[in-house]
Amino acid sequence: MSNIYDSARELSQTLRNSDEFQNLKNLHEEVENDEVAKRMLDNFRQIQLDLQQKQMQGQQPSEEEITQAQKQFEMVQQHDVISKLMEEEQRMSTIISDLNKIITEPLEDLYGSPEEQQG
Amino acid sequence: MSNIYDSARELSQTLRNSDEFQNLKNLHEEVENDEVAKRMLDNFRQIQLDLQQKQMQGQQPSEEEITQAQKQFEMVQQHDVISKLMEEEQRMSTIISDLNKIITEPLEDLYGSPEEQQG
Ligand SMILES: [Ca+2]
Ligand SMILES: [Ca+2]
Repeated sequence: MSNIYDSARELSQTLRNSDEFQNLKNLHEEVENDEVAKRMLDNFRQIQLDLQQKQMQGQQPSEEEITQAQKQFEMVQQHDVISKLMEEEQRMSTIISDLNKIITEPLEDLYGSPEEQQG
Repeated sequence: MSNIYDSARELSQTLRNSDEFQNLKNLHEEVENDEVAKRMLDNFRQIQLDLQQKQMQGQQPSEEEITQAQKQFEMVQQHDVISKLMEEEQRMSTIISDLNKIITEPLEDLYGSPEEQQG
């Protein structure tokens, strides 16, 4: 058992040292240190979160909310640092998802892929 | 990047070789090769799945369904191999959850714990 955890800590350290994480960290700090960028991004995320929560509760967002979300999305897309940060976040999200698939392969061999999995 | 994936493959292999996974695999095969046990477990899982889906759709399960689920649960609990399998599944589930926490620690340092996390 301790071997599994040792191996996970190695992976975690490898991830931390990777260019992908370091890029993400630098861009994150750049935004944190830029008050205007930070407010823009926080605002965008709050709007995204509100939309997600509505959808999870089966509510239809209003036309105004959708327009507002699109406007905010265009704003952050045009912001050089924020758009780079979001790109790196997308890359990291893909990596984490790949890691999960690789690590749980032994379980997939037993139970089938997550789509078919019941237990 | 390839280092991250190499490290994940090492972890996956360590997990596959672990006593915890091998126990789970053996118990899983034992149930698969026992027609009665397999039918009992499949039936239990189907009932659990139906209940979960109802809850996710915000529906209240009927009293009969809850009684049925409890009866099935007692049956699988009393079955030696199935109850051991479910115990090992619980143990594996805890391990996988721990691994996720360890691996995503670098991201938690950036964004805070998943509860606070928005991006
Ligand atoms: Ca090692
Ligand atoms: Ca290695």
